[in-house]
Amino acid sequence: MSNKSISALQAGEISELNRQMQNRIKNLDNQNDLRDAMMYSVMAGGKRIRPLIVFATCLSLNKSISPSTYVVAGSLEFIHTYSLIHDDLPEMDNDDLRRGKPTNHKIYGQAMAVLAGDALLTEAFRWLSEVQVSAQRGLMLVHKLSQAAGALGMVDGQARDIKGEDQQLNIEQLKILHAGKTGALIRYAFEAGGVLANATEKQQKLLSKLGLAYGLAFQIYDDILDVTSSEQEMGKAVHKDQSENKNTYPTLLGLEGAKESLSYTLDEAIGVLERMKDIGVETKLFEELLAYFRI
Amino acid sequence: MSNKSISALQAGEISELNRQMQNRIKNLDNQNDLRDAMMYSVMAGGKRIRPLIVFATCLSLNKSISPSTYVVAGSLEFIHTYSLIHDDLPEMDNDDLRRGKPTNHKIYGQAMAVLAGDALLTEAFRWLSEVQVSAQRGLMLVHKLSQAAGALGMVDGQARDIKGEDQQLNIEQLKILHAGKTGALIRYAFEAGGVLANATEKQQKLLSKLGLAYGLAFQIYDDILDVTSSEQEMGKAVHKDQSENKNTYPTLLGLEGAKESLSYTLDEAIGVLERMKDIGVETKLFEELLAYFRI
Repeated sequence: MSNKSISALQAGEISELNRQMQNRIKNLDNQNDLRDAMMYSVMAGGKRIRPLIVFATCLSLNKSISPSTYVVAGSLEFIHTYSLIHDDLPEMDNDDLRRGKPTNHKIYGQAMAVLAGDALLTEAFRWLSEVQVSAQRGLMLVHKLSQAAGALGMVDGQARDIKGEDQQLNIEQLKILHAGKTGALIRYAFEAGGVLANATEKQQKLLSKLGLAYGLAFQIYDDILDVTSSEQEMGKAVHKDQSENKNTYPTLLGLEGAKESLSYTLDEAIGVLERMKDIGVETKLFEELLAYFRI
Repeated sequence: MSNKSISALQAGEISELNRQMQNRIKNLDNQNDLRDAMMYSVMAGGKRIRPLIVFATCLSLNKSISPSTYVVAGSLEFIHTYSLIHDDLPEMDNDDLRRGKPTNHKIYGQAMAVLAGDALLTEAFRWLSEVQVSAQRGLMLVHKLSQAAGALGMVDGQARDIKGEDQQLNIEQLKILHAGKTGALIRYAFEAGGVLANATEKQQKLLSKLGLAYGLAFQIYDDILDVTSSEQEMGKAVHKDQSENKNTYPTLLGLEGAKESLSYTLDEAIGVLERMKDIGVETKLFEELLAYFRI
């Protein structure tokens, strides 16, 4: 059983992952601006939450970190990064600032930003297809990632978000939106960790449930921060949700209602952890990950 | 040995493929506009050259068409379709017309067009990961497709095209551009057919060579048509290359030079076919595919 903490993972495995992502892009023998644009957004910082979940899930299931863990974590972060580049485009959320820096298209132009996103999305699958697990499990990871990232997951949520700007959604519709937009990749992070760790079917189901609750908590928390934080704290434009008629938890439920909803979701996640303990999962790292959202 | 002609494949297998692609998208349980936008471009016609190559390659290697052939052909056409949607965007080639119809963003708006492209790209990998061949070969197909479509293939070519508008490329640079932009997916079509048909290493190498020559011929032919055709014949804007300072074979070599170059490339391809015949490949369908470019 590992005694690593999340901060130890951040100092160790995440730093190593950053090196691997950087090398992966540096070694692409392609057009310079395209490579620079890919590198810019991948290395622009970010909390690497999704990779952290992959690492934490492996360790929680008593599976040590291996080269394949990095492949799964890195390809996932490429997908997340592409989605940020495309979301920031003028025709989408039209953001100039991300993680305290100019967004990709502000530096490389709109055309190259579209291409850098396309390239990271595609390179994610190339990287993942090199994973050193059984080919069957490799193909399963490809299927799960494309399911989570595409027309049934993240892209679907993004489409609902874009179309939802013209109308007020109810809380159920908002949940579906977020289950796609941010939830799907986060859930995949837990599930992919489970695949790497040879999780039992029962464990895999609970990982899935935890992923769903964690993703929801993540989004409510982010919505709350958008209302309560300053641009400097967030490194991106804030208070945008309301001005753009975005459907968010605070706009639908009020700030207090959103906080209650977050608290309820976290309690649900804690409930899943209790059931995990009964079937041999060490939940310390998951508890640490959830503590992040306590407000 | 199959006695099918290309036109028989078009009437039979390609019609069936169109049905399968349509069903695949229709059955996605997601946001309506996203699904409509994906469907619109996939079903907007097109010659289905890449799927035809996959089918033709299987039959040429004496491998009958199976459900997996459709998976490989359909996922490839999804990738091709996404690339057209993104290429037509205002920030890219800014085209209003494609295959005689308004381009995706003219109907669904620019944001949804970006998302429809992202969704088709991702769905291609989901579909491909369901292929019913050994998991090892399935993973190999994922790797080859992502290699061909991404930062080392098609997207790289597109980036070179965008950046090349500001400068005159030489013929070698133009070849690299096209080997990525159109060549990579076409070469993959031959190679993927080879993987499905259990091609020998020698056969696979020649398929790769043929794909390279075929892709180049395809692009030179397309460049020539842009100069010599009317918008009505092409179903898209023509004579755009010159007005946008695009690097093309006719602008670099003159129309006659481009025709010579096409003729030379076709001779090269015929040379590959001769060598294929010696190792048990039936080349009739490939000859038919090449005859398309005779001018």
